[in-house]
Amino acid sequence: MQQEMQSIWADPRRPRIYIIDQRALPHRLVIETITSVEAMGRAIREMHLRGAPLIGVAAAYGYYLACVQAERRGLKQHYLEEAVRLLAATRPTAVNLARALERQQQAVAGTVAAERSARAYACARSLEAEEIDCCRQIGQHGLALIEEIRRPGSPVNILTHCNAGWLACVRHGTATAPIYAAHERGIKVHVWVDETRPRNQGARLTAWELARAGVPHTVITDNSGGHLMQHGRVDLVLVGSDRTTRTGDVANKIGTYLKALAAQDNGVPFYAALPASTIDWELSDGLAEIPIEERSAEEVRCVRGLAGRRIREVLVPPRESPAANHAFDVTPARLVTGLITERGICPADEQSLHRLFPEKQHRSR
Amino acid sequence: MQQEMQSIWADPRRPRIYIIDQRALPHRLVIETITSVEAMGRAIREMHLRGAPLIGVAAAYGYYLACVQAERRGLKQHYLEEAVRLLAATRPTAVNLARALERQQQAVAGTVAAERSARAYACARSLEAEEIDCCRQIGQHGLALIEEIRRPGSPVNILTHCNAGWLACVRHGTATAPIYAAHERGIKVHVWVDETRPRNQGARLTAWELARAGVPHTVITDNSGGHLMQHGRVDLVLVGSDRTTRTGDVANKIGTYLKALAAQDNGVPFYAALPASTIDWELSDGLAEIPIEERSAEEVRCVRGLAGRRIREVLVPPRESPAANHAFDVTPARLVTGLITERGICPADEQSLHRLFPEKQHRSR
Repeated sequence: MQQEMQSIWADPRRPRIYIIDQRALPHRLVIETITSVEAMGRAIREMHLRGAPLIGVAAAYGYYLACVQAERRGLKQHYLEEAVRLLAATRPTAVNLARALERQQQAVAGTVAAERSARAYACARSLEAEEIDCCRQIGQHGLALIEEIRRPGSPVNILTHCNAGWLACVRHGTATAPIYAAHERGIKVHVWVDETRPRNQGARLTAWELARAGVPHTVITDNSGGHLMQHGRVDLVLVGSDRTTRTGDVANKIGTYLKALAAQDNGVPFYAALPASTIDWELSDGLAEIPIEERSAEEVRCVRGLAGRRIREVLVPPRESPAANHAFDVTPARLVTGLITERGICPADEQSLHRLFPEKQHRSR
Repeated sequence: MQQEMQSIWADPRRPRIYIIDQRALPHRLVIETITSVEAMGRAIREMHLRGAPLIGVAAAYGYYLACVQAERRGLKQHYLEEAVRLLAATRPTAVNLARALERQQQAVAGTVAAERSARAYACARSLEAEEIDCCRQIGQHGLALIEEIRRPGSPVNILTHCNAGWLACVRHGTATAPIYAAHERGIKVHVWVDETRPRNQGARLTAWELARAGVPHTVITDNSGGHLMQHGRVDLVLVGSDRTTRTGDVANKIGTYLKALAAQDNGVPFYAALPASTIDWELSDGLAEIPIEERSAEEVRCVRGLAGRRIREVLVPPRESPAANHAFDVTPARLVTGLITERGICPADEQSLHRLFPEKQHRSR
């Protein structure tokens, strides 16, 4: 296992994309080889991979695979349009997906068929490189925040929800980037890891990442954060974002809003770490405008884990009890202390975001 | 299976107590026979049964069994004192336990050894009858509240956390009593059932109770309530209480506080339903004074459920990741719209509680 692993990487010599099939983590590290846009669509929809930045990069590579397929089989433009529809329909909440596909379409527009694959490959590679660089910079800005909060003699206690780690991005992660940067700098940190029902991305993925990096952490139920904050055991809440409005509303894994409420009630700073690629400059009202994905009830009813040496799924509620599974919620900007972006930290409001990203001003309604 | 089942009952002819071993629910209905105080202590500590009112009744029956054992084996007073210590140490948060034991000790005080068992049996039976009656009355008061909230044409959507049903009491339940009363009255209700990690009492027990009674319900993750409230899909939050201060602070299953914050943020009424037996008149500051039980990390790390036809446990996080398991949190009175007691509904403050229970006024510091 290489020291600095990535959640996705391309074979530079042939059209093969490698991803970590995150469904088997933390108990098994499974690398999946993807060679078609259809397989990439399935991997995104069925959450072999997840996380807004990673979904964007994966969709870009999916489009590249579609270009290769079209070229090999002599398929028409129609096939690429179909590929875009297929990929766009996999997950509705993250804006990265639509944006990566737009970028790919622009990259290949007006190109002769024989050059499309090369263009699409280059475009996906630069998206990948940009996401890595954004996360690295988020880490540096967030590190300054942790250094500020730090008190001599005690570790900085950071609560995080879901997985906004390198598994959700390509490297470093968003919410985890400052944590890794602090840990490398020798600053004592301890992470409260929300298990993050229903898919347990915290318990499975964030805990696995932190354990692998040697960062002290404790897994807790999603119910626990409020109690810990009431008793002064959380210094900072640090989460990712699946889509952010230009006004600073943050759509993130379901339950994030509850932690933001508890942070406000207890005077704990609440930050969302996000590359600008997750900001939807068209939107101003997260609650009204961001589509919230509803997923299968079985994800709530069944829990997957290790039984002996096998990975098994167990049914928790009665067979006849229905379940609902809303995948995200929206934390209104008023509850967000600040946004940690690749260009720096700013308050969660339109003016501040535009000050950091002046080139986006014309994009707003 | 009798129509109106109880969570605990005594054999009137011999010293045998029957309980439902709730660990096997919802997949199996296991009745456990308890014949010694040691077995009752284990059943409480290892949560074969749980719920503040039920813990009180179970402890009372445990003391009765100790009296029988003492009588049969000619054991001294010392044995009964030991029994009290054993039972009192099983669970720290509910006040019902300590109170039931006090009541038993008063009941047998100054009695000849030969009469102790009979006295203790009578005392436990009346505690049981009182808890049933309190829950019935809570149901009637809460029913009026549901009738008030009800709008023509749509069901009343009630969110509940953990299990404050008849499985947590003896019959009816506390939070569920108004729901059952409304359902029987033909009022359309729909219950959002928080699964309630780590032990999933909502998904396992509340869903089982509601399914058995034919009450429409949907299991959700503990993360979901805030999102549902933001979108107007919750009309009322109704929870139980493990211990309530005389000032109206409510200690209940971990995560209750987060739902109370969301209810306040969205203008949703938040009520705790509780018999006066869970009120600790000595306490005025729930956050500072109510002991919060910490339980085994394995309850967080492992999830139990049905795999095929067997009940199995699966490990979710990495083997090496530690977990913390705080069992309760405290919802400050300021977040509680009202308390539903056997004597009526009142605001969550000292004056209002004393108005309902004037005889307790001298008990306060």
